[in-house]
Amino acid sequence: MNDILQQLARVLEERKGADPDSSYVAKLYAKGLDAILKKVGEEATETVMAAKDGNKEQIIYETADLWFHTLVMLAQQGLGPDDVLAELARRFGLSGLEEKANRDK
Amino acid sequence: MNDILQQLARVLEERKGADPDSSYVAKLYAKGLDAILKKVGEEATETVMAAKDGNKEQIIYETADLWFHTLVMLAQQGLGPDDVLAELARRFGLSGLEEKANRDK
Amino acid sequence: MNDILQQLARVLEERKGADPDSSYVAKLYAKGLDAILKKVGEEATETVMAAKDGNKEQIIYETADLWFHTLVMLAQQGLGPDDVLAELARRFGLSGLEEKANRDK
Amino acid sequence: MNDILQQLARVLEERKGADPDSSYVAKLYAKGLDAILKKVGEEATETVMAAKDGNKEQIIYETADLWFHTLVMLAQQGLGPDDVLAELARRFGLSGLEEKANRDK
Repeated sequence: MNDILQQLARVLEERKGADPDSSYVAKLYAKGLDAILKKVGEEATETVMAAKDGNKEQIIYETADLWFHTLVMLAQQGLGPDDVLAELARRFGLSGLEEKANRDK
Repeated sequence: MNDILQQLARVLEERKGADPDSSYVAKLYAKGLDAILKKVGEEATETVMAAKDGNKEQIIYETADLWFHTLVMLAQQGLGPDDVLAELARRFGLSGLEEKANRDK
Repeated sequence: MNDILQQLARVLEERKGADPDSSYVAKLYAKGLDAILKKVGEEATETVMAAKDGNKEQIIYETADLWFHTLVMLAQQGLGPDDVLAELARRFGLSGLEEKANRDK
Repeated sequence: MNDILQQLARVLEERKGADPDSSYVAKLYAKGLDAILKKVGEEATETVMAAKDGNKEQIIYETADLWFHTLVMLAQQGLGPDDVLAELARRFGLSGLEEKANRDK
C-alpha cells in the first residue's frame, strides 16, 4: 500500500508523451496547467461538501480525486509525491528524509 | 519515505485527546470540522496560486499544507490515508489492494 | 446599470418552475444545491487564476460567472441580492438600508 | 439600495492611498494581490459551507464577504463592479448596457 503514490506518479510520467485522446490524464496535460488547476479547485470544493455531508464513502472518493489532481499538477511541473512527502517528514520530524537524501545523490 | 502519510496519521491520531493549547492540530480538532475544512479550501487556493507562479518550492510547500489538512479532516472523520490510497489503487489497477484487504480481516 | 442584480434575480426566480431542459439555470436548479455550490467553487478558482494572469477581460468574465452562480445559490435558498447588499451597506455605513426597511414593510 | 456596490467601490478607491494600518482594506492592498485572492478563495469555501448548513443568516454573511473581497480584487486591478454588471447585462440581455455605453463616452 505504501508506494501507491509513487506507482501512480510513474503512470503519470509515462502518459506525458501519450496521445491526448488516449486517456483522461493525457488530455489534461494537453489542455495545460490551467485545466489541471481548475480540477484541483473543483475537487477541493467537492471534498469540503462531502465532509459537510459526513458521507465517509464520498469523502474517500473526493479526497482521492483531490490527491490525484494534485499529483497530475506536480507531474506537469516536474515534481512528484516524494517532494511533498519529504516536506511533510521535515516538518513533523518523521523518518524518511535520509532515504530521500540518499536517493537524490 | 513510503510510509510518511501513515506515520503522520499516527501522530494525528495521538493528538486527538490532547489539550487544544498543546499543538496546532489539537487546536484544529477543538475548533471542529468547519475550521478544518476552511483550511482545506484555503490551502487548495494557495496551491493553485503557487502553481500559477511556477514556483517549485512554493508548490511543494502549499501541496504539503493541502495534503496535511486533508489528513486532519480524514482523521477527524475516523478515516485515514490508507482509505484514500486504496481508492487510488483500485481506480488505477495498482498493486496494494490485496495487502489492505488482508489487513482489514 | 444599478439594478442589474435585481433584474437578474427576477429572471432566476421566473426560471424556478421551468423545464430543466429549457435553460442552463433550470438545469442547475433541477440538479440541486450541490451542483450549484460546485459551480461557486469552480468559478472562485477561475477568478483567482484570471487575476493571477492579470488578464482584465478574463477577470471580468470569471467574476461575472462567480457572482452569477452565487445569485443562483441565493435564489435556490430563498434569498436574493438585496439581502447581501443590505449586509454590505450595514457593515460600511452606506445608505440604502432605510429604503430596504421600507420595502420590507 | 441599488448603488451599494458603486458606493462601496468609491470607498475602496479612496482607501488605495491610505496608511496600511488605517483600515482592513488598506492593509489588504499593502499585502498585495495574493493576499486578496487568498481571501476570495477562503470566502468562497465559507459560502459553500454556509449553504450546506442551510443557515440563511450565515449564507448572507459569507456571500457578502465573498462579494466584498471580489470588489477589493477588482479595485486592485483597476476594475469595478460596473464592469462585471455590464458583462452580466450583456449575457442576459438586461437593460443597463446603453447607460454604461453613454457613461464611457
